Amino acid sequence: MSLTVAASTQPLSAETVFDLLQRVRDKAPRVHAITNSVAQSFTANVLLAIGAIPSMTIAPDEVAGFVSGADALLINLGTLDETRRRAIPVAIEAARDAGRPVSVDPVFADRSAIRCAYAQDLLALKPDLVRLNEQEQAALFQDRGAVESLIRGGTVLAVTGEEDRIESLQEDFRLRNGHPLLARVTATGCAGGAVLAAFASVERDTALASAAGLSVFNIAGEMAASEARGPGTLVPELLDALYTMTSRDIELRLKSA
Amino acid sequence: MSLTVAASTQPLSAETVFDLLQRVRDKAPRVHAITNSVAQSFTANVLLAIGAIPSMTIAPDEVAGFVSGADALLINLGTLDETRRRAIPVAIEAARDAGRPVSVDPVFADRSAIRCAYAQDLLALKPDLVRLNEQEQAALFQDRGAVESLIRGGTVLAVTGEEDRIESLQEDFRLRNGHPLLARVTATGCAGGAVLAAFASVERDTALASAAGLSVFNIAGEMAASEARGPGTLVPELLDALYTMTSRDIELRLKSA
Amino acid sequence: MSLTVAASTQPLSAETVFDLLQRVRDKAPRVHAITNSVAQSFTANVLLAIGAIPSMTIAPDEVAGFVSGADALLINLGTLDETRRRAIPVAIEAARDAGRPVSVDPVFADRSAIRCAYAQDLLALKPDLVRLNEQEQAALFQDRGAVESLIRGGTVLAVTGEEDRIESLQEDFRLRNGHPLLARVTATGCAGGAVLAAFASVERDTALASAAGLSVFNIAGEMAASEARGPGTLVPELLDALYTMTSRDIELRLKSA
Repeated sequence: MSLTVAASTQPLSAETVFDLLQRVRDKAPRVHAITNSVAQSFTANVLLAIGAIPSMTIAPDEVAGFVSGADALLINLGTLDETRRRAIPVAIEAARDAGRPVSVDPVFADRSAIRCAYAQDLLALKPDLVRLNEQEQAALFQDRGAVESLIRGGTVLAVTGEEDRIESLQEDFRLRNGHPLLARVTATGCAGGAVLAAFASVERDTALASAAGLSVFNIAGEMAASEARGPGTLVPELLDALYTMTSRDIELRLKSA
Repeated sequence: MSLTVAASTQPLSAETVFDLLQRVRDKAPRVHAITNSVAQSFTANVLLAIGAIPSMTIAPDEVAGFVSGADALLINLGTLDETRRRAIPVAIEAARDAGRPVSVDPVFADRSAIRCAYAQDLLALKPDLVRLNEQEQAALFQDRGAVESLIRGGTVLAVTGEEDRIESLQEDFRLRNGHPLLARVTATGCAGGAVLAAFASVERDTALASAAGLSVFNIAGEMAASEARGPGTLVPELLDALYTMTSRDIELRLKSA
Repeated sequence: MSLTVAASTQPLSAETVFDLLQRVRDKAPRVHAITNSVAQSFTANVLLAIGAIPSMTIAPDEVAGFVSGADALLINLGTLDETRRRAIPVAIEAARDAGRPVSVDPVFADRSAIRCAYAQDLLALKPDLVRLNEQEQAALFQDRGAVESLIRGGTVLAVTGEEDRIESLQEDFRLRNGHPLLARVTATGCAGGAVLAAFASVERDTALASAAGLSVFNIAGEMAASEARGPGTLVPELLDALYTMTSRDIELRLKSA
């Protein structure tokens, strides 16, 4: 009945990645992030390092005002308390009204049935971008048909893992940057998701924006790992790499196919 | 009708700044900070680095006990949720009863009408110190008359920006330390506000205490920026600079006029 | 009436400490930590640095699911809000049902009567491990008899200070590692408590596990302090030291008697 989603895999050029990074640095987009309490500070610092401006209020009666003035909205379910559950639908509506891209990061949807159901309700709202790992994807979607149905509705899927896959109706990307030490620092995935949200605010092609944003974050991770002596020194090095990254750094490291 | 506030601008000596820093290091004042969730950890580390002892409980039924035993209270509105809104008036009353200085940092008062109204209610309680930037000041006060009315009531105003201005009934200060890289790290303003609160606990002249505290924080920022390769390495360097700062560091860098 | 608890003090060998550290690194235990908002990020990074997997959800309706899938539960009372108070009993019951060790860290029990009463209720549930300092111990227990009653019920007590004491029904440990600079970083005690919880998940002798976990954390603190220039650089160095610690590091530094 429904046609299979089978967009062709596109290469990603270093030039495009750097161009989008420069747009973020020039435009300094405001990103409102309703994110988990563990990730807040690191996410804010990652956004500032790429040149974006974070805000993080979760109060249900204030969040619409912040989102209306922002260029992108990120919803991360890492610690999903009562206040956040009430704020999230309000924030999404405000972003929709203002025409801003909405990203959803259904962290730990595979670890709690309540969260999985909540995340599925969010996906039904057709966010512009969903970032998740293989386990979260398996928990959220019954089968490939359910995944394709979401993509057909216009949502871009960024599935992170050994190889990162960006899937959309028009085009796919396969990315291979990153470093194992990133998994030894809390909230690197969450903070990386915020980079994608920032990139989606400066480029209407959300799949391309996601591919570029993910590449920038993972290349910064590689640059940091080459300087760090462990997961502790990785954090400051990662933020410095995001801040100082040049077109040459991207050319030397970008792995897309 | 009301006289214009026109205190003369005072110079700030490096000797005074270092003397107050030493008092903080010697006395190890307890600072209770009701601050936003993004800033909590960094603020606590900044307070510890200057020799103060932070506590951060926001539970409305516990906060009075913590504030009564503290030497200063800091109220920061960065993420203003339900619990914090209930805790703040209780905390202020406890600080008043114990005779402790109260500092208010109306973060993002310009970004949310609800928050602006809440902040104005707090200002009506005549805190000892209010720290804000130009945009927050513009949102909170209709005109210069409203600012002067607050100052006449005994509140010291610390307005941060390119040039920092401390305004009080008796004396003003103009300060020019700091570094642009500080704006690329989240919560540097919030954490700097906690330094002012700590300094206000060791010196009754709140304007002088604010000028000294702000100078110490901003000089540490300059010292850190001279060592850092970006906003990531700036954070550990900033904390180290606060911890190791000597009278010589202050003499070499202090810019007051 | 009740016999005095007087277990003999056991030496702790570097070999045992390293063996338990390796078990944590090999097994990668999941530790669910209901901890205070100031400590969350640092605690998660400390757990990741030793090879454990943190989760930190505090939502009362989700926490049982997370705890059931975890290998250990840590309860830290540092910022005890409404949500955490509701989540904690649910989490403890889930840990008990799953046969997982429960650690309690009654932070600031000496600073608030409400918190002291809440902590005493938790102790009545006979957690496997309680980590506290001298002041918290004095606030929680009327006399030595109350302490001994808890130990007789099967709880291991880790009392931190100049000298750390691990007390249990079968054996005691006296430990002397650590560095004063650790007290200049927020949540080092809280994060150290998470290491004990992780170690308790790989070794049924909770007293031995606590002694080894505390030694690993404090030795990492010494290694970090020897590299750091202040409390700022101490944090990344501490995480790197936990990540890279070898049997030789432990042999050279372990102080137990």
